[in-house]
Amino acid sequence: MSAPVYDRIALIGLGLIASSMYWAIKRAGLAQEVTGFAKSAESRATARRIGLCDRVCESAAEAVEGADLVVLCVPVGAMGRVAAEIAPHLKVGATVSDVGSVKRSVVEQVGPHLPEGVHFVPAHPIAGTEHSGPESGFATLFDNRWCLLVPVEGTDPEAVQCLRTLWEGMGAKVDEMTADHHDLVLAVTSHAPHLIAYTMVGVADDLQRVTDGEVINYSAAGFRDFTRIAASDPTMWRDVFLTNKEATLEILGRFTEELFALQRAIRTGDGDHLHEYFTRTRAIRRGIIDAGQDTAAPNFGRETTQ
Amino acid sequence: MSAPVYDRIALIGLGLIASSMYWAIKRAGLAQEVTGFAKSAESRATARRIGLCDRVCESAAEAVEGADLVVLCVPVGAMGRVAAEIAPHLKVGATVSDVGSVKRSVVEQVGPHLPEGVHFVPAHPIAGTEHSGPESGFATLFDNRWCLLVPVEGTDPEAVQCLRTLWEGMGAKVDEMTADHHDLVLAVTSHAPHLIAYTMVGVADDLQRVTDGEVINYSAAGFRDFTRIAASDPTMWRDVFLTNKEATLEILGRFTEELFALQRAIRTGDGDHLHEYFTRTRAIRRGIIDAGQDTAAPNFGRETTQ
Ligand SMILES: NC(=O)c1ccc[n+]([C@@H]2O[C@H](COP(=O)([O-])OP(=O)(O)OC[C@H]3O[C@@H](n4cnc5c(N)ncnc54)[C@H](OP(=O)(O)O)[C@@H]3O)[C@@H](O)[C@H]2O)c1
Ligand SMILES: NC(=O)c1ccc[n+]([C@@H]2O[C@H](COP(=O)([O-])OP(=O)(O)OC[C@H]3O[C@@H](n4cnc5c(N)ncnc54)[C@H](OP(=O)(O)O)[C@@H]3O)[C@@H](O)[C@H]2O)c1
Repeated sequence: MSAPVYDRIALIGLGLIASSMYWAIKRAGLAQEVTGFAKSAESRATARRIGLCDRVCESAAEAVEGADLVVLCVPVGAMGRVAAEIAPHLKVGATVSDVGSVKRSVVEQVGPHLPEGVHFVPAHPIAGTEHSGPESGFATLFDNRWCLLVPVEGTDPEAVQCLRTLWEGMGAKVDEMTADHHDLVLAVTSHAPHLIAYTMVGVADDLQRVTDGEVINYSAAGFRDFTRIAASDPTMWRDVFLTNKEATLEILGRFTEELFALQRAIRTGDGDHLHEYFTRTRAIRRGIIDAGQDTAAPNFGRETTQ
Repeated sequence: MSAPVYDRIALIGLGLIASSMYWAIKRAGLAQEVTGFAKSAESRATARRIGLCDRVCESAAEAVEGADLVVLCVPVGAMGRVAAEIAPHLKVGATVSDVGSVKRSVVEQVGPHLPEGVHFVPAHPIAGTEHSGPESGFATLFDNRWCLLVPVEGTDPEAVQCLRTLWEGMGAKVDEMTADHHDLVLAVTSHAPHLIAYTMVGVADDLQRVTDGEVINYSAAGFRDFTRIAASDPTMWRDVFLTNKEATLEILGRFTEELFALQRAIRTGDGDHLHEYFTRTRAIRRGIIDAGQDTAAPNFGRETTQ
């Protein structure tokens, strides 16, 4: 057990990320009390049933009352609304943070609502699964994963340092960058790949001459990895694309250009071009395994028999 | 141990698929003797060192001598050459099969070389990993996976039945379809997804404003699944695209069309269209898990700490 980093933490939204944070905070004793709030009565009831949060409140305002740290764990499109709701109830000297997958938009939505004397340190843990809701979280989600802090200019360095200590206590490695750079990096490593996976799964579903049964049975050939990505929460991803429009469209533009070049190589039978391209991409995989961001075991170490 | 299905099996090519077949054949006692041959002296030496095959031969001709079943386990582009080489040495009544990821092309390349009295039953096990070479195989690769048989018209049903029994003995479920339908189904479930993954990994690698380190560290957000797919053997995949040109280009055309529609929805802020599309793709994932082709555990059941 570490010493508590904050006396009271409030988690607004009780889905995958918030519930994982709660279990990780408890694992390391990083706060005295954690309050929580989710929009629906159903999620609040589930949270109470499974012991998620020391206290589940009936409003966001109640949850943030007296909190030293408030973390917005809602879809990116809801951040502004929630910020407006909690702003009058924030304690002077409190820190507001979030876990949204897009940062420029959160800075713009949340920043203007926050009163003087409240610190604002946007953050984004690069960790997740395709599951969502209060029951999907687990304490080890952030272990050995990165959490990006995106402090806005003039932020109190001490508030940033506290949040960094919290994330490190939850198992994460912490880095800092600007909101715009964050949004470009994530467009490459996450947002564009997700849209592409969604698209490919949609195409397979649409194709009349291939049955769903065939798609499902023969998915082991590569497609099932796309379906995993494309099974993620629709609301979260709608918001990500709408709020990181520019960078996502830029990367998709580059992607289409490159895809057309490879399609042309296939059409003209340019095997050397293909071979060269496919050889280059192997190195990146090696780097990811060396960096500890994935396992070298075949098929991600899936059990082959089930 | 089952009764042997064939007295002698010859495996030509000793990579991922052939080595997995060998271990699966031995696990269930499906043949009295398995001979093997690979192009390079190095792979043959490795095979001898790790006990892969009862006898590793110095030529494909020698390996197929007296074999009741010959399985071509080489890249699709090499199938014709190997067939020409072994044809004069095939035993009357023998069956020739293969494991190539494309079927129309293999039928066209191999068929014409085979003498009268030799059965030809093309096949394709839908199972693999991103690894290759003689040391990458394991006995359970085919367990609970599908193997597609693509018998050409007029094939002896008994020869087909024997091969089916072999694949079932290696743990696979067996289905039959035509070569053209196979190539379309695989273009959807495997070939197009692979090209897309290769493309996206190439784009990330090219982007000057995002460092390789950033791509690698923040890959957990979705991108790492693409890199796994894009780490597969360049020669195998070059051959797949060059030999399944038509179906792959058709699916990529549909994919681009759909991607453009989603890009337009992002650009115009049509959140309903995005949400609806993302909701639909979840059902396919459910189907794949129900069919036992993947695990429901988050992140494919990866260990979260490593
Ligand atoms: N999933 C990932 O892989 C991942 C990774 C990193 C970051 N993120 C980011 O983390 C945030 C949360 O994602 P998640 O995966 O945890 O989502 P989730 O499991 O779908 O949970 C979202 C939570 O937000 C609540 N909520 C929605 N609107 C609200 C509002 N107006 N007021 C209060 N609560 C509200 C929901 O309440 P109800 O349950 O009552 O609907 C739910 O508890 C998103 O911004 C996402 O971009 C996600
Ligand atoms: N990998 C998959 O996921 C997967 C799945 C289903 C089907 N397939 C198909 O299975 C076949 C083999 O794939 P793999 O993954 O096992 O490949 P691999 O691990 O790269 O092995 C290919 C083997 O073929 C040998 N070879 C190449 N050209 C040859 C020739 N002219 N004569 C004799 N041997 C030759 C190679 O010999 P050297 O080692 O000496 O170079 C190597 O042993 C391909 O047709 C592929 O499309 C692959």
